[in-house]
Amino acid sequence: MTLVPADLDAYLTANDDRIRGELFDFLRIPSVSARSEHDADTVRAAEWTARSLGAAGLTATVHPTAGHPVVVGEWRGAPPGAQTVLVYGHYDVQPAEPLELWTSPAFEPTVRDGRLYARGSVDDKGQLFLHIKALEAHLKVRGTLPVNVIVLAEGEEEVGSEHLASFIEQHVDLLRCDAVVISDSAMFAPGLPSVLSSLRGLAYFQIDVQGPAQDLHSGSYGGAVVNPAMALARILATLHDDDGRIAIPGFYDAVDEWPAAVREQMRSLPFDDEHFRAEAGSPALGGERGYTVLERLWTRPTCEVNGLLSGYTGEGAKTVLPARAMAKVSCRLVPDQDPTEIEGLMKAHLARVSPSGVTTTVTHLHGGRPWRAELKGPLFEAARRALAAAFGREPVITGEGGSIPVVGDFGRILGAPVLLVGFGLPGENAHAPDEWMSMENFTTGMRAIATLWDELAAH
Amino acid sequence: MTLVPADLDAYLTANDDRIRGELFDFLRIPSVSARSEHDADTVRAAEWTARSLGAAGLTATVHPTAGHPVVVGEWRGAPPGAQTVLVYGHYDVQPAEPLELWTSPAFEPTVRDGRLYARGSVDDKGQLFLHIKALEAHLKVRGTLPVNVIVLAEGEEEVGSEHLASFIEQHVDLLRCDAVVISDSAMFAPGLPSVLSSLRGLAYFQIDVQGPAQDLHSGSYGGAVVNPAMALARILATLHDDDGRIAIPGFYDAVDEWPAAVREQMRSLPFDDEHFRAEAGSPALGGERGYTVLERLWTRPTCEVNGLLSGYTGEGAKTVLPARAMAKVSCRLVPDQDPTEIEGLMKAHLARVSPSGVTTTVTHLHGGRPWRAELKGPLFEAARRALAAAFGREPVITGEGGSIPVVGDFGRILGAPVLLVGFGLPGENAHAPDEWMSMENFTTGMRAIATLWDELAAH
Repeated sequence: MTLVPADLDAYLTANDDRIRGELFDFLRIPSVSARSEHDADTVRAAEWTARSLGAAGLTATVHPTAGHPVVVGEWRGAPPGAQTVLVYGHYDVQPAEPLELWTSPAFEPTVRDGRLYARGSVDDKGQLFLHIKALEAHLKVRGTLPVNVIVLAEGEEEVGSEHLASFIEQHVDLLRCDAVVISDSAMFAPGLPSVLSSLRGLAYFQIDVQGPAQDLHSGSYGGAVVNPAMALARILATLHDDDGRIAIPGFYDAVDEWPAAVREQMRSLPFDDEHFRAEAGSPALGGERGYTVLERLWTRPTCEVNGLLSGYTGEGAKTVLPARAMAKVSCRLVPDQDPTEIEGLMKAHLARVSPSGVTTTVTHLHGGRPWRAELKGPLFEAARRALAAAFGREPVITGEGGSIPVVGDFGRILGAPVLLVGFGLPGENAHAPDEWMSMENFTTGMRAIATLWDELAAH
Repeated sequence: MTLVPADLDAYLTANDDRIRGELFDFLRIPSVSARSEHDADTVRAAEWTARSLGAAGLTATVHPTAGHPVVVGEWRGAPPGAQTVLVYGHYDVQPAEPLELWTSPAFEPTVRDGRLYARGSVDDKGQLFLHIKALEAHLKVRGTLPVNVIVLAEGEEEVGSEHLASFIEQHVDLLRCDAVVISDSAMFAPGLPSVLSSLRGLAYFQIDVQGPAQDLHSGSYGGAVVNPAMALARILATLHDDDGRIAIPGFYDAVDEWPAAVREQMRSLPFDDEHFRAEAGSPALGGERGYTVLERLWTRPTCEVNGLLSGYTGEGAKTVLPARAMAKVSCRLVPDQDPTEIEGLMKAHLARVSPSGVTTTVTHLHGGRPWRAELKGPLFEAARRALAAAFGREPVITGEGGSIPVVGDFGRILGAPVLLVGFGLPGENAHAPDEWMSMENFTTGMRAIATLWDELAAH
């Protein structure tokens, strides 16, 4: 059985206080990428990251972009034939508001009950920093690493990573690698190391239904003029059947069923439907018949209404027959659904079901491809062993209902497999007041990642 | 064949210039009931109306209310056994804004191409004033009237007649009558005198669908939590069947089919579907199968969405699973549907079709009963003959898709039949810039009403 290498473990233990102190310094920088008044802080966090990489033994460069800088650290001293790995993370954080809901100040790190509270603690400074410290342990203890390493830290993750894809494209030679490792997600539960198997994609539409040329009096025209709000409701009602399946013809054609073993493993995860329902605050759960809650969230596509607007929405009664009605509708996609193909199917379906008397237009606002990990191969196997060594048990395979577009960019541009292994926990308030990271996950995660590089080189 | 009495006709012809001048004075008063800066003007219009009634030979009183005054004129000198008629009109007007869209100033009456342009010309000062002048003709020429007359002019019609029903209830003895005559509507077409056969009622609801306790991330929860906006769309889609009929069980039970003769007459009216469609600006007309456009507007109930609101409605894409969704939904009702009964049917239907996973509440915001005229009896027959005498042809029977709550109040509180005979025309811009009244309809309408009192007494 694999163990955490004793030399690295001893180094990390001996330097525990210093590492913690440095992490606190990093968290004290309010690098809020969404707020221009924090632009200087964001640059400061980029420079801090570069210095930290340098202190660990890497060569670090701060690259200006049209937005916030990208920091790249490199160490390329591994033996000939060794693999090159790229570690991605981000040094920017969400806004901290509403400040009054924080128990301790957002940018003054505070440990309570084993949790480190601070904006950015888990998303993503703590997880980026544990990678830097794992590299430092290798380089300080042994003067070398078994793999070549590139660390890529961006400052725009919380505002859509606007300049990252083009940065990667413009620096393909610099960033060429055999594997990408990202720690910006959560474990399924305390003590359960987790590897993310998939992300859902997205196809986001706006549906506009135009009826009469202007709002009409519902008494003078109602009954003879087609009501666009009612037409929209009837259109939206065609998107699902009574079993919760999406009724757009062809919608499931490209859906690649999950391997039975992965489904089996997902079904064995300790998941409490009632707890999930209570957390959402819903009267009851719903969704597609024949699937568990986790399968619905991780393995099945959706079609949701994100917004509705038509006619009079103020207080009281106004007898208007609206001129138009609008819906925002988005589909979460699973492999191998393609947002452009889904756009075509959606448009064809709406053209078919839109009634006469209104004009329906569909605009594709935003799309992203779904992603599925390679749950085999040297990178995955090394991660499995390293996580087992650090956490004392085999990792579980989890999914993610949301989308992280940058993951697809790495795969697409660099052609390398991506490993998503995160050390957050459910309830960590990543984008809310009182964000926290488990200190135990920080120290154990650091050891797991330190072990990962040995394991990747050893097999 | 009935003719306009020659003595009254001669008087009105001889006094034509003076009558027109007085009407212009009336129209110059900007009695905008909705704007408190015009409160003094509204009082001035009430006093002007009272003086005009006095000059015609009636006794007039201005009654203060909690809002704008009610003016009551009386003449009770008819022979014993004569009927008492009540004429209702209003001296207040809609706001004139946007002023820049008026060809000539809103409160400076101007005649162009036989049309008198001014705010209030047709709605309703011109129509109220022609009644006063018809009474004046009788009293000046003959010193008497064949019926007792009460004129009730209010100043809050354009702001919901808030204090009128209670005024009527508090003055039942003063206002007791055998018939009510109202001229505040339009003829079907130029040269086609029209009697209004019906008004639709209203049952206006707000439907609130509550899903999760707060907005959720559509990636993290979508597929397993019931989406209240989608649930609302599916609920609204159950309100009609594919033939445009309302699918709420029991909804049509109280609908009293129109007499075949009235339907036949409506079908013979010169109505151009294409003109109506173009005026509405709709790509195509729609509605309940098996009925003409006019039947749909006048004789059939509706169920319309007046407003929709849920989730994100701004520019671009936001991946929110909304916590709630709201629709304003109103039903136009026809005799003998009752708003309270419809409320019960609506609530029962929505309770049946609302899916699990959301909580649906229905609030009844506003209701009004439909109304149907007695298209027979002495009042209707007298109107038929009087209109034929003045306009040279029999009146047509028209309907009205909208609601005028005060009509029901007269019937309910005073127990008298109501005759709606108006002299407006389609396209008269009653609530828009360039409001106008046909001068020919004004002078002919005045003679029709003068004739009406003779005819009512003679049979």
